[in-house]
Amino acid sequence: MSQKELGVALIGTGFMGKCHAMAWRNVAAVFSGAHPRLEILADATEDAANAFASQFGFARATARWEEAVTDPKVDVVSITAPNGLHRPMAEAALKAGKHVWLEKPMALTLADAEAMAATAAAHPGQMTMLGYNYLRNPAFQAARDMIRNGEIGEPLAFRGVYDEDYSADPLLPWSWRMTHEGGGLGALGDLGCHLVSQMLALMGPVTQVIAQTQIAIPARPSREGAKAVENEDSAMALLRFASGAHGSFATSRVARGRKCRLQWEAHGTNGTIIFDQENMNELWVHRAGEAGFVRHLSGPAQPDYAAFCPAPGHNFGFNEQKVIEARDLLTAIAGGPNVGPDFADGLEIERIIHAMAASNGTPVRIGGQ
Amino acid sequence: MSQKELGVALIGTGFMGKCHAMAWRNVAAVFSGAHPRLEILADATEDAANAFASQFGFARATARWEEAVTDPKVDVVSITAPNGLHRPMAEAALKAGKHVWLEKPMALTLADAEAMAATAAAHPGQMTMLGYNYLRNPAFQAARDMIRNGEIGEPLAFRGVYDEDYSADPLLPWSWRMTHEGGGLGALGDLGCHLVSQMLALMGPVTQVIAQTQIAIPARPSREGAKAVENEDSAMALLRFASGAHGSFATSRVARGRKCRLQWEAHGTNGTIIFDQENMNELWVHRAGEAGFVRHLSGPAQPDYAAFCPAPGHNFGFNEQKVIEARDLLTAIAGGPNVGPDFADGLEIERIIHAMAASNGTPVRIGGQ
Amino acid sequence: MSQKELGVALIGTGFMGKCHAMAWRNVAAVFSGAHPRLEILADATEDAANAFASQFGFARATARWEEAVTDPKVDVVSITAPNGLHRPMAEAALKAGKHVWLEKPMALTLADAEAMAATAAAHPGQMTMLGYNYLRNPAFQAARDMIRNGEIGEPLAFRGVYDEDYSADPLLPWSWRMTHEGGGLGALGDLGCHLVSQMLALMGPVTQVIAQTQIAIPARPSREGAKAVENEDSAMALLRFASGAHGSFATSRVARGRKCRLQWEAHGTNGTIIFDQENMNELWVHRAGEAGFVRHLSGPAQPDYAAFCPAPGHNFGFNEQKVIEARDLLTAIAGGPNVGPDFADGLEIERIIHAMAASNGTPVRIGGQ
Amino acid sequence: MSQKELGVALIGTGFMGKCHAMAWRNVAAVFSGAHPRLEILADATEDAANAFASQFGFARATARWEEAVTDPKVDVVSITAPNGLHRPMAEAALKAGKHVWLEKPMALTLADAEAMAATAAAHPGQMTMLGYNYLRNPAFQAARDMIRNGEIGEPLAFRGVYDEDYSADPLLPWSWRMTHEGGGLGALGDLGCHLVSQMLALMGPVTQVIAQTQIAIPARPSREGAKAVENEDSAMALLRFASGAHGSFATSRVARGRKCRLQWEAHGTNGTIIFDQENMNELWVHRAGEAGFVRHLSGPAQPDYAAFCPAPGHNFGFNEQKVIEARDLLTAIAGGPNVGPDFADGLEIERIIHAMAASNGTPVRIGGQ
Repeated sequence: MSQKELGVALIGTGFMGKCHAMAWRNVAAVFSGAHPRLEILADATEDAANAFASQFGFARATARWEEAVTDPKVDVVSITAPNGLHRPMAEAALKAGKHVWLEKPMALTLADAEAMAATAAAHPGQMTMLGYNYLRNPAFQAARDMIRNGEIGEPLAFRGVYDEDYSADPLLPWSWRMTHEGGGLGALGDLGCHLVSQMLALMGPVTQVIAQTQIAIPARPSREGAKAVENEDSAMALLRFASGAHGSFATSRVARGRKCRLQWEAHGTNGTIIFDQENMNELWVHRAGEAGFVRHLSGPAQPDYAAFCPAPGHNFGFNEQKVIEARDLLTAIAGGPNVGPDFADGLEIERIIHAMAASNGTPVRIGGQ
Repeated sequence: MSQKELGVALIGTGFMGKCHAMAWRNVAAVFSGAHPRLEILADATEDAANAFASQFGFARATARWEEAVTDPKVDVVSITAPNGLHRPMAEAALKAGKHVWLEKPMALTLADAEAMAATAAAHPGQMTMLGYNYLRNPAFQAARDMIRNGEIGEPLAFRGVYDEDYSADPLLPWSWRMTHEGGGLGALGDLGCHLVSQMLALMGPVTQVIAQTQIAIPARPSREGAKAVENEDSAMALLRFASGAHGSFATSRVARGRKCRLQWEAHGTNGTIIFDQENMNELWVHRAGEAGFVRHLSGPAQPDYAAFCPAPGHNFGFNEQKVIEARDLLTAIAGGPNVGPDFADGLEIERIIHAMAASNGTPVRIGGQ
Repeated sequence: MSQKELGVALIGTGFMGKCHAMAWRNVAAVFSGAHPRLEILADATEDAANAFASQFGFARATARWEEAVTDPKVDVVSITAPNGLHRPMAEAALKAGKHVWLEKPMALTLADAEAMAATAAAHPGQMTMLGYNYLRNPAFQAARDMIRNGEIGEPLAFRGVYDEDYSADPLLPWSWRMTHEGGGLGALGDLGCHLVSQMLALMGPVTQVIAQTQIAIPARPSREGAKAVENEDSAMALLRFASGAHGSFATSRVARGRKCRLQWEAHGTNGTIIFDQENMNELWVHRAGEAGFVRHLSGPAQPDYAAFCPAPGHNFGFNEQKVIEARDLLTAIAGGPNVGPDFADGLEIERIIHAMAASNGTPVRIGGQ
Repeated sequence: MSQKELGVALIGTGFMGKCHAMAWRNVAAVFSGAHPRLEILADATEDAANAFASQFGFARATARWEEAVTDPKVDVVSITAPNGLHRPMAEAALKAGKHVWLEKPMALTLADAEAMAATAAAHPGQMTMLGYNYLRNPAFQAARDMIRNGEIGEPLAFRGVYDEDYSADPLLPWSWRMTHEGGGLGALGDLGCHLVSQMLALMGPVTQVIAQTQIAIPARPSREGAKAVENEDSAMALLRFASGAHGSFATSRVARGRKCRLQWEAHGTNGTIIFDQENMNELWVHRAGEAGFVRHLSGPAQPDYAAFCPAPGHNFGFNEQKVIEARDLLTAIAGGPNVGPDFADGLEIERIIHAMAASNGTPVRIGGQ
């Protein structure tokens, strides 16, 4: 697919902002194709915007994101700003005729996500892509392909968790991230949505969830005294899939010692696959007839690994997932397949996590599947 | 506690029968105390009974279990016969004045379990003990003690699975074990009850379960053609504990590649403990302030390990769990503490797995806790 | 092979004494055959001997080991006394017409080992067996068989270590075990000999060693002030095998955090096998064509595992190795194959570790291979 | 340190060529500082050079490396060409006044390495850097710092291996890489030198080596029939360090199943550190008083990890090591510390691997330490 040069705007320069910048800088070097033009970078202040534009190699800087999303030399906008800004930024970019690469979660409320999906649907020539970067890991892709190719037989069960411990310390001060208005769904919105994105890719559509949530640390210190935490620290769910498989799901932001424990196992009639993002270059696979679980180390037999390194076992990294995501977006923009998740796919993810948040121990049907 | 010599009857000579025999032979050598007299062994036929009595070192043999449970020289009866015989054997033994050591699951139906617990309660001077051997693992005991001593803070969450793959092959012929009448609850009754026993020991009483089950392979070959499987191959559940913690639970007998995957993690406000029976000599513990998870290899700092081996890291074995179980029963018989699970405790376990089997996605309250 | 009942004497009641006792008590229950008669137990004092005879179930007790080894009702003697007594006890037992089961290391000096092997050779009808228990692990046996059956192709390389940390603390007081006279070779004699026993079983005869040793902590506290450590804390060696393979070897008693790290890997032209005694129920095997290393969990496909447990993944234990060792000795006594290591085999092990101790960086040829 | 913009030439576009290109593109984005100008790329043919210059974003292309190393707009030259060209390219670049970033191994012969080190010494204002990328792994740096800070006490022992299996297949055809003239030292030159680079950084200078080598597959198929392999497939060594510690060393290119097994353990009087590059984001550390080995997952407490990702456990990748290496070179060029390994350091590495190749079981003293 021939690719014309594209102008890029980047909003935000934190964890994910830098990750997008690295991806934009290297996507053509890794996968070939035209090098994106790094046109304009938006950050909260002029000084920050100037400093990061220089560091990341963007031509211009602005403290007004509205300027970045409407800039005529910009074709595609990377949005890595706080979640509460996702909707206005994405909608403004779409209305200005831009393609949009948006970090997850899509929005703070289901209503926002629905509106955004509608806006995207109204601009069918513009691509949207959500930053579910773990889907790009070559090991994950290999697992997904094994399942789709029937290597573990008919799907029977899924068990997944995504645990971190960034909120585990009870002395961690209260913040707006712990409110519904500022932080949306808590662990489900921050971590759980990643697990849902992988689950859907591996197991297909979900038809029912039953969930329960927990606020592990109900109040946290602030300058005005202890304040209530509103969104869940932890959630667990049972799942039914359209395929007939069933599943369990758990996420926590208060799981002491876990750093990026996005871990799942998929059971089929003929085999089992196990994965843990903390060891993101390994799959553990057992198929009937094998003597036990086999450690599959990532290597160049996985095409998207090969683009980075011709030698197996050399360790693909977290940030390189984002380069693949950029490539996937560029492919879609150039008229190739859109592997998603786009805003329509993202809305499905949001519906599932919001159903979990609302279930309170009762079954909730999902979608019209 | 001084222990008088006890006469032992053993019913059954399969997997668990041999395990009981080894335990009875070595319990005094390991822990000191009087050596049990191996009085009489019952098996299905005279020939088998004679052969195994000779092999296991029992003085006499019988093909009539009723004879064994009423023998005047017998004080304690080990019951390792098929599950459908648990109730008549245990009740006969109790009524004959014997102590009873019974393999799990307690019974095939909740009604049977209730009756057995009532019979045991009517014979308060006779001890009952259920064969939840994994509770005796020194590593498990260490984990339980850490939690009770507050080393991981307030309990927040439990995640447990018990998976094996002994029924995973779809060509495995149909058997009476796959019926309600012959096999009771399936994976929940065979495997899940072990996980419940550990969960209760670690987390305290359960107040609510929501569960869903799956028959993964609905029909299996038999000489009369394909026949239906009646009991579940797999079950998953959400849990609420009296402590306020919540939990997830899963068990499967069709999990390809899993052999004895009795695995759980307990989350507290101050730490996390992880265990997997396939590596039964390891605990993985993280407490706030530690740089990561710490591998605790079993060793003589665990008293029941020390009785077997003074050197750490040398690997306590599955069968040795049963020696500790024998010691626990002998201690109770001698008037010491009864650490259980006795029939009353076993009934609590049965209530939970039967609630799971019946839940079908709706919450079921447990007990009066 | 029919086995007549044998009378057993046990000398020593520490770590290995108790392990022998448990093995003698259960060997017939596990493998069938006549139950050994536990005739007489010898310990350092009358009181200890009486107490342990009662605990372990021996008929009589003595504080004079000479009495045990000459007792007319005794057929086989288990020797688990301090190493310096191995030679006189074993020779007395052999001269009294007994079979001998002796703990490793065979002796403190090479001269002693040579004399003992000569005495054994002079009593060809009496069996000798050395307590290299790790050879009996079903996982180890499976690895050895894989290599012998050519499953990893032609042998290329061996890399082995045996590390523990029981002497790692510099404040650990000086003891006679740290002298040549009392403790022989140090880590090589205590740990390294186990690794040599496995190496020979896996790779065949050694033709050359080059080694260097280290006294990590040259002086240790005693009541008389700091005293010198004479024997090595650590040794490393290069090896050549008769097969053409080469190898590396290391052992340490000062390896912080290691508890029973008897770990090796065997490389062949067609595959690799990895083992670590700290996880003694696992082999890691890779053969050409497999996607990676495969975790082989021990299970009943290994015959000596099956005798203890019909279910895979349930964890064979350290002490159960000794039951297999007892079975191997009883088989040899009954006229079956003597799988060893007997005193002749033990002498070969001693020659290798003494060659390592003496090498000081220069090549030493081994034997006449 | 303020950094002026530098012009970059890149020679070679294979595995390491692409890795350098990615590093040059992202070093300023990650660490801030001036963005290097990608001036000119040299490859074997015009077409390849043009294609890769476009892909990697270099301004110009050439099929004549001599042109690249003398280009007046070039300040620094990345050399990733076949090893036999390292000396002429590096010397030409140095003589043209350029800084040099050279892939390992430094050269095919010790004489070449000595000449190169002399040339570098004659141009003291120009920096040299060798591509020992594994030294840049934040986990490795953390381990090295722990040792230097005394966290494991006095160093006692080092055990290291670097195994891969790229030559394990006996049917792999003969190539010039298997000759002394074309391939230099074989596994020692390709893999072993990396392990030496880490060993020196962790343990300090080596004073003696004793080594033995093996050609596992003496002849390989070629169009002209079987041809002899000249350089070693595998080597093993014993080491003495200036500190008094001792060590073992092994490397193989025929170790079935190993992909990037650069694995070592460092023993100190107070602790042990274990590392394996196949899981390059983990250190396993045990210090006296800890309950066992602790899994240290890489995270932002390691400064060079933090530059890439603020979240722990997210997996730093192989290629990102090279970005750190670029930063280290740029720091040295800007007048900051030169952390090496420069050509003088590289010569020390070469002396050790050539000593190993020549030892043939006899001790070889290293350097004047």
